[in-house]
Amino acid sequence: MVNFSNKVKDLNGSAIRDLLSVIENDNMISFAGGTPSPETFPKAEFAEIATEILLEKGNIALQYGATEGYAPFMEQVRARLKKQGIYKDGDGLLITCGGQQGISLAAKILLNEGDLAVCENPSYVGGLNAFRQNGARLEGIDLLEDGINIDRLKSAEFAGMKLLYTIPTFQNPAGITMSERKREQLLEAVRATDAYIIEDNPYGELRFAGEEVPTIKQIADRGKNNNVIYIGTFSKILSPGLRLGYVVATPEIIDKMTVCKQADDVHTGMFSQVLASEYMSRYDIDAQIAKTRALYKEKYDIMQGAIAKFFPDSVQVTKPQGGLFLWVDGDLKADCNEISRAAIAEGVAIVPGNAFMADINAKTSAFRLNYSAPLKEQIQVGIERLGRVLCKLS
Amino acid sequence: MVNFSNKVKDLNGSAIRDLLSVIENDNMISFAGGTPSPETFPKAEFAEIATEILLEKGNIALQYGATEGYAPFMEQVRARLKKQGIYKDGDGLLITCGGQQGISLAAKILLNEGDLAVCENPSYVGGLNAFRQNGARLEGIDLLEDGINIDRLKSAEFAGMKLLYTIPTFQNPAGITMSERKREQLLEAVRATDAYIIEDNPYGELRFAGEEVPTIKQIADRGKNNNVIYIGTFSKILSPGLRLGYVVATPEIIDKMTVCKQADDVHTGMFSQVLASEYMSRYDIDAQIAKTRALYKEKYDIMQGAIAKFFPDSVQVTKPQGGLFLWVDGDLKADCNEISRAAIAEGVAIVPGNAFMADINAKTSAFRLNYSAPLKEQIQVGIERLGRVLCKLS
Repeated sequence: MVNFSNKVKDLNGSAIRDLLSVIENDNMISFAGGTPSPETFPKAEFAEIATEILLEKGNIALQYGATEGYAPFMEQVRARLKKQGIYKDGDGLLITCGGQQGISLAAKILLNEGDLAVCENPSYVGGLNAFRQNGARLEGIDLLEDGINIDRLKSAEFAGMKLLYTIPTFQNPAGITMSERKREQLLEAVRATDAYIIEDNPYGELRFAGEEVPTIKQIADRGKNNNVIYIGTFSKILSPGLRLGYVVATPEIIDKMTVCKQADDVHTGMFSQVLASEYMSRYDIDAQIAKTRALYKEKYDIMQGAIAKFFPDSVQVTKPQGGLFLWVDGDLKADCNEISRAAIAEGVAIVPGNAFMADINAKTSAFRLNYSAPLKEQIQVGIERLGRVLCKLS
Repeated sequence: MVNFSNKVKDLNGSAIRDLLSVIENDNMISFAGGTPSPETFPKAEFAEIATEILLEKGNIALQYGATEGYAPFMEQVRARLKKQGIYKDGDGLLITCGGQQGISLAAKILLNEGDLAVCENPSYVGGLNAFRQNGARLEGIDLLEDGINIDRLKSAEFAGMKLLYTIPTFQNPAGITMSERKREQLLEAVRATDAYIIEDNPYGELRFAGEEVPTIKQIADRGKNNNVIYIGTFSKILSPGLRLGYVVATPEIIDKMTVCKQADDVHTGMFSQVLASEYMSRYDIDAQIAKTRALYKEKYDIMQGAIAKFFPDSVQVTKPQGGLFLWVDGDLKADCNEISRAAIAEGVAIVPGNAFMADINAKTSAFRLNYSAPLKEQIQVGIERLGRVLCKLS
């Protein structure tokens, strides 16, 4: 038995990951993933530029690079974020190995063992594990229809928190978007503490209905608040396989993250960065995102249509205006793990809701559905199968 | 002022990195880098396969992948390491974002704050920072001509160490290779403790003279020792820009590292892994390495030839049989930082030796020279310049 460090000894793999290994089966329809649809990857465009990059910029793309990121790519990211109101002059920027590394670095630079990290309940497992592996004491606050329960956040219990982790737009797993009013209240509540807000926004650009809501970072900038660490990614709008994300925060925070990243993996893959940079120079990434949004809207509509037809009335499903996920809950006579097992027996995979809880032993009948990855024809069939399971259990 | 976590608050960037930013100057000849020569990158071969990968395997190369690594690439890495005697049946394997991430994960899973991590003095800065950012108490043991000082290692002072970090072959920065006898002694000394040996071997395949020495992992396997965590990389033999490294250790250790890696960056870049995998299927990576070795041998000979001609006799230079680095020390009337400044004034960059010390405030006149990155004609001119500096200071 290895004597692992205290901070990691109780850390377990994501339940989703274990689940995904079970469902490698031709007949299985999976709503358990959290991946973008490969139909959206700009393969032809990348293919067109990859050879040229290797032959003409190979000395850069295949060599070590700066820890901060590849300068031309950083410039493009900055310009894009500025247009979106997320980056302001004087902010720091760090290119990371996916958004996950941004969360992980934020956790590392802020958390001592035993420090309180607060999250939405439910929340993204990968984020929670980043806090757990820094020895955080993790507490969840219930997620209401318009975002986190602010009254609860203001209670004495959370006054000493070191960070608050939120996915305010098209939340994973619940699909919920925090209202602008609540974002303001959140900022105000956190300003009263010494805590930082980790704003994780992987899905914000995947809106297919409704009105844009400003990011928490954007609202914080209006009030000259410096307590938001903003995490973004190209995984859901371009390609996760390239592992490209970024962090926007004060230079002091970005500098410390950079030093830590240097000791973690030196720098983010150069070929990936040069490829994304050339792609953004030559093609219209916003048109690419618009195509993705349109596809996800279609899949979303198919899924909601099938749910209306096949799910029992006792079950509630969130109605997000973008993103990748729906959250299902209701008056069911089974725990989420039982539902998951029954679904697998019917040839359909979901993620049981307890995987997303700060306390993974919490009892819930809720579960997550993904509509970006399955094919349109699979969505129809899969929801019908799942409907049979839920009807039996309701 | 941000209230950073205890483990990172005193962590500073690598002095080398700061130095490299100073020397972006056309007339400057740099022996300060640690990068492979871009002349060795298989650009044409990569260009030949990249388009095909994107068009035919884009759904895999651009998508999320397993945290452990891309299965066909893992199979190739396993087969290669098995042939080299480094991987044995029953071992675990994890593909990492460069060798650096392997060191970082080993540090994370083993070290509590205040734990003793032992390294060679001097040693690789990135390794040392990985231990520092986990709150380790870092102690260096002097490096002798045939490797670490074993008598010192056996002293009571080190009995409670949690890990020992070594680069046994063509050490960075000293170029020293630990003798087989000393590797056996090291294993024996560490077996008497509960510590793990982190064997970092980025340069082992870059031998251009002398006889192979078995890895510590290999010797440990003969004695059924399970206390070696072996770190390898493709950065020095293929391309650092792809960020591909790996760890070989017991499944228990690899499983814990995998869970931590999942929370750090989900997985290593898929396009990089598929590219390296296809490259290894279609081309002969050993022939590629042989070409690199031949080039470095030429550069090494030029550098040693120029050193013999231009350096004062009072200066000693190591004579490695491979790798990227020489270590210079001697009876000089100046500290390494003064030498570095004087060298920059003459248009040549080196890395001052204290950057590589467990205690960066240690006084030394030693410094590191790299011969892989500069062009052959630069080596001659640069060493002549440096010789002038050293003659003045000797």
